[in-house]
Amino acid sequence: MDEFGLIEQFFTRRARHPEVVLGIGDDAALVALAGASEQLAATTDTLVEGVHFPQSAKAFDVGYKALAVNVSDLAAMGARPLAFLLSLTLPAADPQWLAGFRDGLFALAQAVGIDLIGGDTVRGPLSVTITALGAVAPGAALRRDGARVGDRVYVSGLLGEAALGFLLRGGRVSLPHEFHEPVLTRLDRPVPRIAEGRALVGIASAAIDISDGLVADLGHILAASGVGARLDLRRLPLSAAYDAAFASVGYDPALVFGDDYELCVTVPPEREKALAAAASRLPCGLHYLGDIVAAPGLTLYDGQGVYTPARAGYNHFDDPGPV
Amino acid sequence: MDEFGLIEQFFTRRARHPEVVLGIGDDAALVALAGASEQLAATTDTLVEGVHFPQSAKAFDVGYKALAVNVSDLAAMGARPLAFLLSLTLPAADPQWLAGFRDGLFALAQAVGIDLIGGDTVRGPLSVTITALGAVAPGAALRRDGARVGDRVYVSGLLGEAALGFLLRGGRVSLPHEFHEPVLTRLDRPVPRIAEGRALVGIASAAIDISDGLVADLGHILAASGVGARLDLRRLPLSAAYDAAFASVGYDPALVFGDDYELCVTVPPEREKALAAAASRLPCGLHYLGDIVAAPGLTLYDGQGVYTPARAGYNHFDDPGPV
Repeated sequence: MDEFGLIEQFFTRRARHPEVVLGIGDDAALVALAGASEQLAATTDTLVEGVHFPQSAKAFDVGYKALAVNVSDLAAMGARPLAFLLSLTLPAADPQWLAGFRDGLFALAQAVGIDLIGGDTVRGPLSVTITALGAVAPGAALRRDGARVGDRVYVSGLLGEAALGFLLRGGRVSLPHEFHEPVLTRLDRPVPRIAEGRALVGIASAAIDISDGLVADLGHILAASGVGARLDLRRLPLSAAYDAAFASVGYDPALVFGDDYELCVTVPPEREKALAAAASRLPCGLHYLGDIVAAPGLTLYDGQGVYTPARAGYNHFDDPGPV
Repeated sequence: MDEFGLIEQFFTRRARHPEVVLGIGDDAALVALAGASEQLAATTDTLVEGVHFPQSAKAFDVGYKALAVNVSDLAAMGARPLAFLLSLTLPAADPQWLAGFRDGLFALAQAVGIDLIGGDTVRGPLSVTITALGAVAPGAALRRDGARVGDRVYVSGLLGEAALGFLLRGGRVSLPHEFHEPVLTRLDRPVPRIAEGRALVGIASAAIDISDGLVADLGHILAASGVGARLDLRRLPLSAAYDAAFASVGYDPALVFGDDYELCVTVPPEREKALAAAASRLPCGLHYLGDIVAAPGLTLYDGQGVYTPARAGYNHFDDPGPV
């Protein structure tokens, strides 16, 4: 049973309030208050010490990343960030740690324009839960269930950078020195793709952020949309750092690690021109990987045949995962 | 430094979005989307095993109470419950525990009419964070900062019941057998005072829910409003169970333990008639305790003179507290 199975098996109920436009199962829920010019997008994510970040993690990075993973979910809905609530569980009130955490938290909060509006601070094993609220025009949110046969699959930015950072920190890959800082920064301080998500409103038919790896997260789009996909791995957007490590790590870090927080979207062919116009204004770019097909499941080609990754994605309960 | 000091010292920043009507420092934050007929109230609270509930707690009660403490914050704002997000940190995926937790969670969710719209499930030491969203008419929310000199102080229901349950479970008080189940139920399954909160909109000048004890929570109203209060302890609403234990426990369990989740409100004298009309329709009743005064601080009289409780309230960092 994976973490999504847990939630879906035990907790999915039909919402009763007419204000609930979209409930469990997407990057964020959508709530529409009567008369409002925008819908509210709401999402929550928890980071636990020893599971999502090591005990040696800098307080700054914990604060930054705890907010980043939530804002990334707003980005995947095409929503603008508005406000967040912070629940902080701490073994002790350490002013130095708190100051570092706060600095990282507000560094990202200011960069993306999101206000801290409430919280709770309790004693216990270190963990951080953030609930982020965003706003999006009615009907405009990017959902997971809109991919259709013939749509094209894109990802933003670069894949596998966070994985390389993780492998590098663990001494499991060697990289030229000039690549160390970039890949570690991608692991510790991912950049939520807010501008990209908002630019894709009206263009993408489905979207998700890549938190658990391309295979797992595109898999959520495919399952929600009732379709399959075929991707050409030679099209994966990989950095020069990744190229330097490719002979030893292959495709898998870019496919099954996650933590990149890029967007994966599907785009109907008739919107290719609009996509090109939008993408030209976005610094991190959008990269075509393949197509949505009717046959269920995800098929990966590597130029020689079908490629099967070593494992199916980051999963807290089946597998402790790389962290 | 107490938990509130932590939050205020490290995390309070002025909100930049015009949609943020009320930020950190009340029972819930308020967000107003353009055009909306209601404002959104948002609050978050975390329960940690070994801190907020013992390892022996029933899964049902953990699920119930994790939601109840959040819904109680909505009640204290006069908001109607709408939706919530659940972040669940579990050491393992135990279907039996999860089923019990779910049953308790949804028992309260159905009773108060609140929809689960999203969540996160991660591996780690057992804790539950819920973010609850409610709706309240613009300008109608009950805040902490509205108490004025001459206002009268009321509480709903009974005080000290949860404390008695806790003391009973720990073998620290003896009670006639017929009182055991009522006080343990009050500890494990507090009833958020939603109807009371909504009925007090337009009547109360300030409100808070009693999670940390009357002394601490009324203290928050006094600090936010820049006033003081004088209460007559002989007016405290105590049950027959409490009367049976009074000789051994005195006033303190009703003053400094918390966990009752009753409402404490202040009411201007000119609204006494409206209050009486509203209170007559509310089953748990409202009880007059004393008055708001200009001199800062809270003064308690017990019929013989000024009474000083043994400790100032439940506090996670200064004092591990009773749990």
